[in-house]
Amino acid sequence: MALLTLSRFALGSSVSRLTKQLVTVTRPVAVARVSTSNVQRESSTSGRSHSQNFSSTDVDGAGGTRSRFFVGGALLLGGIGLTAYTKFVNNSECATAKTTKSAGDSLSAAEKAGLPIKGLPEYSQEEVAKHKTPDKGIWMTYKNGVYDVTSFMKAHPGGGKIWLAAGGSLEPFWALYAVHKSDEVFEILEEYRIGNYQDADKIKHKDLSDPFANDPYRHPALRVNSEKPFNAEPPPSLLVDSFVTPNELFFVRNHLPVPQCDMQNFKLRVEVPGKKTINLSMDNLKKNFKEHTIMATMQCAGNRRSQMSGYKTVKGLSWRYGAISTAEWTGVKLRDLLLQAGLTEEDEAKFAHIQFEGLDKDASGGHYGSSIPFSVAMNPFRDVLVAYKMNGTDIPADHGCPLRVIIPGNIGARSVKWLYKIVASDQESPSHWQQNDYKSFNPSVDFGQLDYKTAPAIQEYPVQSAICTPRDGSKVDVDEEKVTIKGYAWSGGGRGILRVDVSVDGGKEWHVAELQDAGQKISRVWAWTLWEAEIPIPKDHGGKLDICCKAIDSSHNVQPDTMKGIWNVRGLLNTAWHRIHVGVVQEE
Amino acid sequence: MALLTLSRFALGSSVSRLTKQLVTVTRPVAVARVSTSNVQRESSTSGRSHSQNFSSTDVDGAGGTRSRFFVGGALLLGGIGLTAYTKFVNNSECATAKTTKSAGDSLSAAEKAGLPIKGLPEYSQEEVAKHKTPDKGIWMTYKNGVYDVTSFMKAHPGGGKIWLAAGGSLEPFWALYAVHKSDEVFEILEEYRIGNYQDADKIKHKDLSDPFANDPYRHPALRVNSEKPFNAEPPPSLLVDSFVTPNELFFVRNHLPVPQCDMQNFKLRVEVPGKKTINLSMDNLKKNFKEHTIMATMQCAGNRRSQMSGYKTVKGLSWRYGAISTAEWTGVKLRDLLLQAGLTEEDEAKFAHIQFEGLDKDASGGHYGSSIPFSVAMNPFRDVLVAYKMNGTDIPADHGCPLRVIIPGNIGARSVKWLYKIVASDQESPSHWQQNDYKSFNPSVDFGQLDYKTAPAIQEYPVQSAICTPRDGSKVDVDEEKVTIKGYAWSGGGRGILRVDVSVDGGKEWHVAELQDAGQKISRVWAWTLWEAEIPIPKDHGGKLDICCKAIDSSHNVQPDTMKGIWNVRGLLNTAWHRIHVGVVQEE
Repeated sequence: MALLTLSRFALGSSVSRLTKQLVTVTRPVAVARVSTSNVQRESSTSGRSHSQNFSSTDVDGAGGTRSRFFVGGALLLGGIGLTAYTKFVNNSECATAKTTKSAGDSLSAAEKAGLPIKGLPEYSQEEVAKHKTPDKGIWMTYKNGVYDVTSFMKAHPGGGKIWLAAGGSLEPFWALYAVHKSDEVFEILEEYRIGNYQDADKIKHKDLSDPFANDPYRHPALRVNSEKPFNAEPPPSLLVDSFVTPNELFFVRNHLPVPQCDMQNFKLRVEVPGKKTINLSMDNLKKNFKEHTIMATMQCAGNRRSQMSGYKTVKGLSWRYGAISTAEWTGVKLRDLLLQAGLTEEDEAKFAHIQFEGLDKDASGGHYGSSIPFSVAMNPFRDVLVAYKMNGTDIPADHGCPLRVIIPGNIGARSVKWLYKIVASDQESPSHWQQNDYKSFNPSVDFGQLDYKTAPAIQEYPVQSAICTPRDGSKVDVDEEKVTIKGYAWSGGGRGILRVDVSVDGGKEWHVAELQDAGQKISRVWAWTLWEAEIPIPKDHGGKLDICCKAIDSSHNVQPDTMKGIWNVRGLLNTAWHRIHVGVVQEE
Repeated sequence: MALLTLSRFALGSSVSRLTKQLVTVTRPVAVARVSTSNVQRESSTSGRSHSQNFSSTDVDGAGGTRSRFFVGGALLLGGIGLTAYTKFVNNSECATAKTTKSAGDSLSAAEKAGLPIKGLPEYSQEEVAKHKTPDKGIWMTYKNGVYDVTSFMKAHPGGGKIWLAAGGSLEPFWALYAVHKSDEVFEILEEYRIGNYQDADKIKHKDLSDPFANDPYRHPALRVNSEKPFNAEPPPSLLVDSFVTPNELFFVRNHLPVPQCDMQNFKLRVEVPGKKTINLSMDNLKKNFKEHTIMATMQCAGNRRSQMSGYKTVKGLSWRYGAISTAEWTGVKLRDLLLQAGLTEEDEAKFAHIQFEGLDKDASGGHYGSSIPFSVAMNPFRDVLVAYKMNGTDIPADHGCPLRVIIPGNIGARSVKWLYKIVASDQESPSHWQQNDYKSFNPSVDFGQLDYKTAPAIQEYPVQSAICTPRDGSKVDVDEEKVTIKGYAWSGGGRGILRVDVSVDGGKEWHVAELQDAGQKISRVWAWTLWEAEIPIPKDHGGKLDICCKAIDSSHNVQPDTMKGIWNVRGLLNTAWHRIHVGVVQEE
């Protein structure tokens, strides 16, 4: 049932249970075996099998050529189901050294998979990345193993998101589709083993005169909007397959090169002028402050910008609708650090702003920075964290290793990565990104007229939603009679999602979607709500469906119908109804 | 300068100063005299005189016939200016008995005006109300005076909102336009004195078998949507003339007859099951708990419903856009009462809801009621009050005398009037208005399909704005070259207004309005923001202006373009862009 629950995301306790497992299970577990026939029986009860689900779902490929080659459904690769949903342990740059075990008969197939095997050739990431098409061979990695799965993929044609792992790691996909983590699957996988994976040499061959030389390895499934600085988003269709986004698939929004942190000497500086300045080592931070964990969604203020450009050209990175992801963040409360440095609740008049700086620097040596209002930083219910873990592992290099301040409910730009300094001030952060970016203007203000002093720095996010599947421009078979639509919805400031309305006729008739919110309350809701609607294909479809969605948050705020009133030259906060078009065809 | 400041509502300190005066000056004060020429000089400096302002402003008349008769500008009646803005002391049903002074030479004209004069005929409200047209005579009252101002009004033709006082009291208008409160004006006024006003006999002649027999006198300027129960709104053009709405012009939304309160024996019951039940007399409440004052806007969830019906018919009272008003509320924090009754911050799991009941009852004896979440009631920053004063006076009968719970930032329906009982519970209020009303559905749900159990009770308001002047369907003179547009904007949950955009071409070009927010911060903003935009009449106006406005709140939430996505069968929360049409004419 867990498989079905996952694929159809039933509400309430089952989702809470899944979330709980996510939180408590920190490494792959050996699981009960379920026969193929069992799974098929369960699937047919639901009226739709999991494999049908995959094969009818197109994938937003990271590269233009890939979308033609979706072979081997994720389920086909495994062929069996299981009852536990396990957590992906991320290869973090900051992770403490992994203990390498030599393979022995006492280990299960799942435990043995991916361990180094003496005598096999060694392959670098660069080498693996070259093999992602049938003509060049399809290679994938799992832990320290390199696998050539070309013949397997060719033998299992059909749709499937597993293709997105080609030339990269299988691990984030197996975090999404836990069904594969069984001994049987690992035994099959090892049959394709061709070598060992040198994951230690990630930056060895890079040009060290390049300021981006320290940038880490990224998973090839990410769609890259900018290489330097690195900005990339996961395919939206993957986002809705898991409430939590695996770290390797989490969207990356870097403004500057990824900095290197001297972990031996690193200290976080917390400064309250006229009171105290404290310098905290990582050990000190972890030992002397209470640890908190929140599930929070991070969204770039520029998410869905490319669609705004479709209305009228804007300037900025051309994000589609994947500049949003959800993780479980663990750390200490910012409030606790500020209290320790002598700040009190009565200090708002003197210290209206709490400023942050990251280790990342521009050519002139200026650091990335932001600030938030005192009332947000000091509010005990606002849950602002100085986080050191992301989905249970040390924060990866691209996401702020070793520390990131997490301002849940605000735009991502305020959650400074590589955090090394916190200062209480009577001024907002002087940083370019607080003063002269991430501000919104009315639709009649064009370039050359931007007076950043007249607009406030964007903090909380308005209500947002998007359709992640089906893909814009794809086709549905009229004989299916129904179309299944999935997406996300989220609002800032801790406002939960009350309802998501979905239409297949451009907004004439609206259907209420089923919601998955992982049991979050209606206030202090920091994470998104995933949703799904199964809508009959109207008889008068005219060969196409004009699909749109809109969400309502707990304050009954709504999304605007169009971009007419929200268009802004910087392309920020595009929250207009998300619209896609899908063809209706008669398949033979 | 105060006059100019008021009429043009300059921002910042001057507004704060006005607000402060509003708070501190609780009775009409004798003020410095300013000559007419001084006022005219100041007005011309601003490029527009106050009287021009009035004469170019049409008034949303309470009755259909009135709008043809706007004679005598408010300024014309006085003809002079003054430098203080004074507060209207409301004739409250609950007010303690007024001390009547006999007129004597030691009193100023302002102090003498409206005192009873021996030997003059006595007139009831009913009698005064009959005189509101030139043919029947135009009567108005001020304190205990009745005045026949027919000849004055006829001698001063022109536009002017003072007409709305015909057949009723001048007092709320003089609260709006404080310029009149000078000795000279009161001397002129007393020349029109014809009698004494029996304001004590308000309900003497009513049919006591009528459950609405206790309903109080209402000012004739209110536009009545329903007599029994009484529901009425002020003309929107008056709303924007003062940051605070005078009590007599504050919109009234009653669900049931106005109850009579036995003030001698009245006690507020605060009940936390398993802990304490406390019963508080008014004296006890005022003496034993800290007094707090907040400026807060109240808005009916049905405000702007009539416009929603213009899109597609909805059910409910046909509110235009005046079901919103702002007052200064004084009382004690609900949180303090609950703490006194033994509730603690740790009790949320047991008492998720705080329920309220009012003294007003339906035919079956059921009380009006509501509830709010524990986290709202107990949040020290949420400022929920149990109020006993409205704009400095005891709360008037129509507004909840003696107690009203004020849930700032929520829909008005949750702020229970005539409050007598507060109960902590694990359930929401069982009241009809919590369970089966004030809930919103998607646009495809029609009558007969309403399943109230599937929708949450509306609590916080989304972002809203409306144009109060010019009036829809009015005309502007092309030679004026510009059109001045005024309105209000407000958002729920304490979210301030960041920006108001106004367009005169249906949304092609947007202008940023000047804001008046009385110095409120950007968070915990409980009161509205008034706004004003002076926009050039476009050369290609084609004889009409398609004026629309939209506001952006501190979370960057926006209003939807149209009602297409928010239409709901109950006509609630119409926050679509407000649109009006105004003709452009060449006056001779």
